Amino acid sequence: MSTPRAFFGVSRRILLSSLAMLSVLFASPRSTTAQAQAQRDPLPSWNDGATKAAIVDFVGRVTTQNGPYFVPPAERIATFDNDGTLWIEQPMYVQLAFVLDRVKTMAPMHPEWKDKQPFAAVLDGDLKAVADSGEKGVAELVAVTHAGMTTAEFEKIVADWLATARHRRFKRPYTELVYQPMLELLAYLRANDFKTFIVSGGGIEFMRPWTDRIYGVPPEQVVGSSIKTRFEMRDSTPILFRLPEINFIDDKAGKPIGINAHIGRRPIAAFGNSDGDLEMLQWATLGASGARFGLIVHHTDAEREYAYDRHSHFGKLDVALDAAAVNRWTVVDMKNDWKRIFPFD
Amino acid sequence: MSTPRAFFGVSRRILLSSLAMLSVLFASPRSTTAQAQAQRDPLPSWNDGATKAAIVDFVGRVTTQNGPYFVPPAERIATFDNDGTLWIEQPMYVQLAFVLDRVKTMAPMHPEWKDKQPFAAVLDGDLKAVADSGEKGVAELVAVTHAGMTTAEFEKIVADWLATARHRRFKRPYTELVYQPMLELLAYLRANDFKTFIVSGGGIEFMRPWTDRIYGVPPEQVVGSSIKTRFEMRDSTPILFRLPEINFIDDKAGKPIGINAHIGRRPIAAFGNSDGDLEMLQWATLGASGARFGLIVHHTDAEREYAYDRHSHFGKLDVALDAAAVNRWTVVDMKNDWKRIFPFD
Repeated sequence: MSTPRAFFGVSRRILLSSLAMLSVLFASPRSTTAQAQAQRDPLPSWNDGATKAAIVDFVGRVTTQNGPYFVPPAERIATFDNDGTLWIEQPMYVQLAFVLDRVKTMAPMHPEWKDKQPFAAVLDGDLKAVADSGEKGVAELVAVTHAGMTTAEFEKIVADWLATARHRRFKRPYTELVYQPMLELLAYLRANDFKTFIVSGGGIEFMRPWTDRIYGVPPEQVVGSSIKTRFEMRDSTPILFRLPEINFIDDKAGKPIGINAHIGRRPIAAFGNSDGDLEMLQWATLGASGARFGLIVHHTDAEREYAYDRHSHFGKLDVALDAAAVNRWTVVDMKNDWKRIFPFD
Repeated sequence: MSTPRAFFGVSRRILLSSLAMLSVLFASPRSTTAQAQAQRDPLPSWNDGATKAAIVDFVGRVTTQNGPYFVPPAERIATFDNDGTLWIEQPMYVQLAFVLDRVKTMAPMHPEWKDKQPFAAVLDGDLKAVADSGEKGVAELVAVTHAGMTTAEFEKIVADWLATARHRRFKRPYTELVYQPMLELLAYLRANDFKTFIVSGGGIEFMRPWTDRIYGVPPEQVVGSSIKTRFEMRDSTPILFRLPEINFIDDKAGKPIGINAHIGRRPIAAFGNSDGDLEMLQWATLGASGARFGLIVHHTDAEREYAYDRHSHFGKLDVALDAAAVNRWTVVDMKNDWKRIFPFD
């Protein structure tokens, strides 16, 4: 190591003083940044009020080292429903829009569908008749649109569809119809060393192609409903073939089961918006020690988005809304708690 | 901000020289540490040779930014079998030892077992008769020892058993009978921004209570076989009750299926030791672009551990050994490639 001569030409006192000064100089930008970050609102799209305060209070408590509610980072598991909690679910689940579009795309190769329900109903745009076909009808639609191809092929089909499909009312790709305040909440939790998971009734393989890009949630942190797959070697290449058989429904009581299967520990915070999330919120918050947080997004803004709850066909919020009061879960009043709804607002 | 007077008493030239010197001083310990780390062998329990070189070469290639084989950290997924790959599986799978012990512990509450197979065989220590009871008999044993309690209760049962159970030959807790070279490999991969997963035919809930402590693999990165659970509210407390019904067998062709279900992307490296790992290795390494790595631990050391392969009852390695030659997977010769077997060696 070469020793600059100037170093020895400087008295020890001056050097030490310089050092002190330098440490101030060097530290200063960092401190300023830290202060700015602390002062900068991590949830700018949330109006000040009880809802926002409850979130910030919970995060503060579980991250305060030596505090009575401290939770080690590894145990800071937060689970989020997707439809109606992170992105739009009206006038129908996005995945249902995918199914309907997909049937239309596939129809030329299936001339027999013109006279066969529930396919004819889809092609005629008769949603009432589709609904009347019941579980069996919907299962048939899911089977032809979701099975019969490899996992890699399905991923491409979903990505291609999302790139071109547009929401009827907002004329935007569905991946833009995500809730800005919830994006901020996901980022805020992760900045506080939470691991954020999606736990949705939607198809796990329908979500995984885009959740990382849109929400910052990687595929291995997505839990959802699934169909069975079969492993095969095809010409020395391994594939997973998607079968027309339900494997798991990640909804209602299925959510704690899916959480246990995938994550293996109970979340300390859960975020939902419908009765389908009731059991996940119970699993995260009840009968457990320490600070726990449950939150329900209540869609109260017909002007900027939609207003619906107890009698909605999609995203019905009834029992879970009553349970929120009993269990002191935080209920977001979308109209009053959120400054912005979508990132483009 | 107060400005130390000494700062202005120093000429600009001297200050800059001091600064240059200080940067060297400050940088120097870090560089030395970095050099030491690079020089310090990350795999000290591996003998130098082709096997170790293949591992280091693979990791070097996928982590070399701008290199032809670079893989972004998020996609650096590595999957490890457990029995026989990370810990001992002779003279029987550890989980089978648990089942046998558990039946003995439970026997006083089940006097009828004395005259009922396969329970009588277990109580008599007649392993041949247990084996002869076939899949149905083993399923019965698994049902009474693994189901009929909550997930929290089962976790405690497993943890308590592991704390007291000892391996017959080594007189050690099973959690000490883990392979030191593989612990180093797990840590080495993680230090290179890999995410390490366990993908085992063993029970997912049997492994999760201890994999973080022993392997540094958290519960959400453990994939395994499972039984079904049912969600219930009991006195306002949510529980998951374990049912005597198989949910998923994470072995052979089940491994790629389990990997896809839990991780949602293909691993770029997979580590196993038996025919049960063949499909996982295929899924990780074949028909995919970029650098891929497959490794098989071949148990060749009867003196320090066990020697077994093509005709072993547990951990049979036959087809996968042949496939390793064809697919250029790395085969660990335990006797010659490993300096130490266990951490206590």
